[in-house]
Amino acid sequence: MNKKLTITPYGGLGEIGMNCMLIETETSAILIDCGLMFSELDHFGVEFVIPNFSHLLTKKAKIRAIFATHGHEDHIGAISFALKAGIRAPIYASQFTTLMIRERLRETGMHETVPLNVLAPGAEVTLGDLKVKVASVNHSIIDAFALFVDTPIGKIIHTGDFKIDASPHFGDILDKNEFKKAGDEGVLLLMSDSTNVERDHEALQDEHIATRFEELFSKAEGLILVSMFSSNVGRMANIFEIARKMGKKIALTGRSMEQNVRLAHERGALTFDSSLFIPIDKIRQYDRKKVIVMSTGCQGEPRSALNRIAHAEHAHIKLDQNDLVILSSSQIPGNEVPISKLLNELFKCGANILYDTIEDVHTSGHATRPELKLMLEMVKPKYFIPIHGEYRHLVHHAELAQECGVKQENICVVENGEVVELGPDSIQIVDQITELRVLVAGREGTEITKTLLKDRRKLGEMGVVFCLMTREKDSGKILSKPEIIARGLVSESMEPWLLDEALNIVQGQIEKYKQDLKMGVINKDLAEEIRVELRRFLERNIGKKPTVIPLIMDV
Amino acid sequence: MNKKLTITPYGGLGEIGMNCMLIETETSAILIDCGLMFSELDHFGVEFVIPNFSHLLTKKAKIRAIFATHGHEDHIGAISFALKAGIRAPIYASQFTTLMIRERLRETGMHETVPLNVLAPGAEVTLGDLKVKVASVNHSIIDAFALFVDTPIGKIIHTGDFKIDASPHFGDILDKNEFKKAGDEGVLLLMSDSTNVERDHEALQDEHIATRFEELFSKAEGLILVSMFSSNVGRMANIFEIARKMGKKIALTGRSMEQNVRLAHERGALTFDSSLFIPIDKIRQYDRKKVIVMSTGCQGEPRSALNRIAHAEHAHIKLDQNDLVILSSSQIPGNEVPISKLLNELFKCGANILYDTIEDVHTSGHATRPELKLMLEMVKPKYFIPIHGEYRHLVHHAELAQECGVKQENICVVENGEVVELGPDSIQIVDQITELRVLVAGREGTEITKTLLKDRRKLGEMGVVFCLMTREKDSGKILSKPEIIARGLVSESMEPWLLDEALNIVQGQIEKYKQDLKMGVINKDLAEEIRVELRRFLERNIGKKPTVIPLIMDV
Repeated sequence: MNKKLTITPYGGLGEIGMNCMLIETETSAILIDCGLMFSELDHFGVEFVIPNFSHLLTKKAKIRAIFATHGHEDHIGAISFALKAGIRAPIYASQFTTLMIRERLRETGMHETVPLNVLAPGAEVTLGDLKVKVASVNHSIIDAFALFVDTPIGKIIHTGDFKIDASPHFGDILDKNEFKKAGDEGVLLLMSDSTNVERDHEALQDEHIATRFEELFSKAEGLILVSMFSSNVGRMANIFEIARKMGKKIALTGRSMEQNVRLAHERGALTFDSSLFIPIDKIRQYDRKKVIVMSTGCQGEPRSALNRIAHAEHAHIKLDQNDLVILSSSQIPGNEVPISKLLNELFKCGANILYDTIEDVHTSGHATRPELKLMLEMVKPKYFIPIHGEYRHLVHHAELAQECGVKQENICVVENGEVVELGPDSIQIVDQITELRVLVAGREGTEITKTLLKDRRKLGEMGVVFCLMTREKDSGKILSKPEIIARGLVSESMEPWLLDEALNIVQGQIEKYKQDLKMGVINKDLAEEIRVELRRFLERNIGKKPTVIPLIMDV
Repeated sequence: MNKKLTITPYGGLGEIGMNCMLIETETSAILIDCGLMFSELDHFGVEFVIPNFSHLLTKKAKIRAIFATHGHEDHIGAISFALKAGIRAPIYASQFTTLMIRERLRETGMHETVPLNVLAPGAEVTLGDLKVKVASVNHSIIDAFALFVDTPIGKIIHTGDFKIDASPHFGDILDKNEFKKAGDEGVLLLMSDSTNVERDHEALQDEHIATRFEELFSKAEGLILVSMFSSNVGRMANIFEIARKMGKKIALTGRSMEQNVRLAHERGALTFDSSLFIPIDKIRQYDRKKVIVMSTGCQGEPRSALNRIAHAEHAHIKLDQNDLVILSSSQIPGNEVPISKLLNELFKCGANILYDTIEDVHTSGHATRPELKLMLEMVKPKYFIPIHGEYRHLVHHAELAQECGVKQENICVVENGEVVELGPDSIQIVDQITELRVLVAGREGTEITKTLLKDRRKLGEMGVVFCLMTREKDSGKILSKPEIIARGLVSESMEPWLLDEALNIVQGQIEKYKQDLKMGVINKDLAEEIRVELRRFLERNIGKKPTVIPLIMDV
C-alpha cells in the first residue's frame, strides 16, 4: 500500500479565525470549514479577511462536500464567498449550523446554489473514497461536531473547536467512548483545537456559570442586563430558564441576538412561549426588577445597543445604580481597547458591572490543557497536527502531544498554506501556497487590494495634495495661475501658510518652464518635476512625503 | 478656619497614561506629573496624546513647581510640551527621574528653560503655603516617589505609581513607617494608584523574578535574549549580576536601552566595568552560550530590533532552537495584537520562548489589592481619591477604601477635568474643564486637530476623488473635457469602469450647465452640483460617500 493524501490548511493555523482546510485523496476532496476573520483594518474600509480561493478553485472538480464543524463566523462566514468564487459542493453540517449557514446564504443571495444537508450526531456520509462520520462535541455554540474521516490509509479525526463539558444545557456531552473506541481501533492522524493550550487549569463548566447567574440574579435590585455572544444558545437557555423561575421578562436587543433566538427556537434548543418576552421599547412599562435585557455588543462594538446604553444614548434603557450588568464573554484579542472603553462608560452609569476577570460569569468554549491531554490520551493518534490557534499555541500543543506519547517525528506543526502529505507511515510538508488571504470591504465581497490599501494608508496618515494648472495645448503656454488643494495635510491654522509656500515652489518650476519655452522647448516633465519638488518641500517642512498629484490640463 | 484648596486632574484619572494634576491653594500651586500617552491613532499620523495646557496656562503665575513622581513617559513625557506652551516652573524629581527628564528636554531643546532640581528621598521643599516632602516607593523604575504635601488645611498624600516590594534590587524599600506615622498624625486626603486594584493575589516580588532568571539562564544551552521595558533598571541590574556570576557577556540593542543603561550608570544604580559588554555587531565572535542580548521591543513595536530578530531580518542575531528568549514584560493594553504577532514569529525561529502568562518572568510595578489595602490602613485618610487607572479601577478602588474604613461620603471618584474642592471638612466637585487632550504628530508637537483627524479618517477609509475642468472666465464656456482623478477609492481593476461612469455623471451636469448658458445664465453652483451628484453616484455604486473635490479653473 503506497497510497497518500494531502491536507491543505488555507486558514486557522497560526491564527485564530478564518478556518478552512482541504483533505484530498487522489479522487476525492472535502473542505472542512470555510470561515472569515474580522479585520483590524476597519479604519481603511476593510471589514473581513477571507481565504483566497484561487488555489482551491484548481481543485474544484474534486471537492465533494463542504463540512462546517459549527456555526461561528470563523468557520462558516466565508462559505458564501466561496460559492461566489465558483466552488460548488453540497454543504453538510449539524441542525443549528445549517440554520446559521442558511441565514448567511440568504443574506448574500447564494442560498439556492448548493444543497444544505443536515446531519444528526453519529451520521455518516460517503464521498468517493472518504467516509465522514460526525460526532458531537461541546463548545460555546450548540450542535458543534468533530469529524471522523475514514480514508484509504486510515482514520483522521478533526476535533473542530471543542471542550468537554459534563453539563451542557442543550445537546449531547462529548462522547468520550466514541473517541476512545476510535483510539483503540487506531487513529492515523488527530487534528485538535489548540486555542487554550496555554491554560493549565480546569475550565469552569457551563453549569457553574448558570448557578452563579442564578445567585447574582436573585440578589439584583434593579434591571439586569446581560451582554454575551449572540451564538451562545446554551447560555441563553440558562438565562431563559432562570427568568421563568424568577418570574422575570426578557427583552432582546441586537439584530443577531434576535435572529439567533429565532433560529435556536426553530432548532428546538430554546423553548419558550412568547409571553416570556417584552419588546425593548416597552420596558419602561414594567417593574425594573422584573426585566432582563439580553444584548450583543460585549466586544465594545461602537454601534451596538450596549454601547449606546453605556453612553446614556439609548432610547429605552437608562442604567442606574441598582442595576446589574453582566458581560458574559471573553475579550477577543484586538478588542481590548474598545471593551475597556465600554466598561468605563458602563461604570460611569453607577450600576454594578461584572465581567469575567472579576466574577465567574463566562467560560471559554475551548478545551484547556487537561482536556486536550485527555483527547490525546483517548485518541492515541499515530500522527498529530495541532490546529486552530496562534503559532505559539500550535507549538505548545505539539509539546503536549509529545508528553502524551506521540512520537516527536510524527508531530507536524503546520502553517497556513503548507501542504501536508500524509501516508500510512509518513507525514511531511511537500508544498507551500502563498497569497492566502483576501481583504474585503463587506459581505458583498469587494476586494481591497494591496495597492488600494497602500494608497489608503498613505492618505490616512498624511493626506493628499493636488496641484493644478491649465496650459494651451499647441503653444505650451501656461494659461492660469497654479492652484493647490490639500486635504488631511496639516491643521487649519497651518494650512494657509504651508500652501502659500508650496505655491512659491510651483511658481519657481513654472518660471523655469517659461524660460525653456522662450527657447522653443516645451518641457514635457513639468508635472513630474512639480510633484518631486512639492514632496521635497513638504518633507522639509512637515517631515512627511504625502501623496502629491499634479495635473496640467491642456485646453 | 474656612480655607480650601482645589485639585484638578488634567489626565490619568479614567485612563492609564498622561498623568497630570494641579494642587492649588489661594496663593500657590504645584503640578504633579506631566505625562503623555501613546496614541492608538498612529495610522492617522498621531504619535502622542498630551494634556491641553490652555487651562493650566491661566494658572501659570501661581505654579511654583512641577513634581515628577518617576521617570516613565506617562509621568514626564509631556513636560517639554508644557514648557513649550509657556508653563515656567522649576522641576523637582529624584536623581534618576531628573536624568530621564534632562534627556527629554535636551532632545527638544528645552533643557535651559527651567531649573531641574534633584531631591533625595525624605527631602522637603517649601513652595508658598505648600510644603512637599518626597518618600521612596517601589515601582518598575528606580527612584520613584510618593509626595506628602502639607497644605494649610492638612496633609495630602499622593502615592504616585507604587508597589511594596521587600526586595528591590536597588534603592529603598517603601518605608511603611513613614506612611504609618503620617497616618497616625492625620492625613486629610490620600490619592493612591489604582492600576491593579482588580488583582486579588499578592504580586510576585522582584527577587523571585531574579531567582527564576538565574535558574532559567543556568539551563540555557544557547544564546539568551531578554526583552524588557528599557526603564526597568532594577531588572537590568539583576541580569547584569547574573551575567557576571555566570561569566556571560551582555550585548544591548535598542536606543532607549543603551540610553537608560548610561543614565542608570551615571545614577550609580548600575555598576559594571565595560568588559561586561560586547557590541551587538560582534556577537558572532563569541560562544553563543556566553551571550545575553538585552533588547527593547517587548510591546511588538514593528521597527524594534526584536521584531527584526523575530522575522530573521536582523544583521547580527539569528535565533536557533537552542536559544532562550524571555519577554520580561506585561502587555500594555492596545498592544495585544502586535505582541501576539511578535510571539508567533519568535516561535517560528524554533527557540524556547517564555513570557509572563506561562512563566514567572515579570511582575507588575503596581500594587495589587492586598498592598492597596495596606496603604489605606496605614494612612487612614479622612478623604480618598483613587488615581491612575481606568474608570472601573477607580470605582473598585473606591469600594476598597470603603471596606478599609473611609466613609463613603468622603470618597470621591474623580474624572479628568473635574475640579475638586477640598476643605478640612468637605470634598466636592465644583467645576468641569473640557477639551482636555491634544493629539500631536511627534515630539516636535505639531497638533492634529479634530478637523484634520476627521479628514484623514475619511481619506483613509474611502479615498478621495478630484474632478477638474476649465472654463473661460468671462463667457462661462467650458473649455476642456472634465477630468476625474481618484486615489484610494477602489481596486485597480474596478477603477477604470467606475471613473468612466462617474465622468458620464459629470458630463450630464455639464450638459445642463450648457443649456442654461444658451439661455444666458451662468450657473454658479456647477461645482457644488457636481460634488453632490458624484457622491450620490458613488454611494449607489460602492456604498460609500468619499471626499469629492470639484474644481473649475477659470482662464
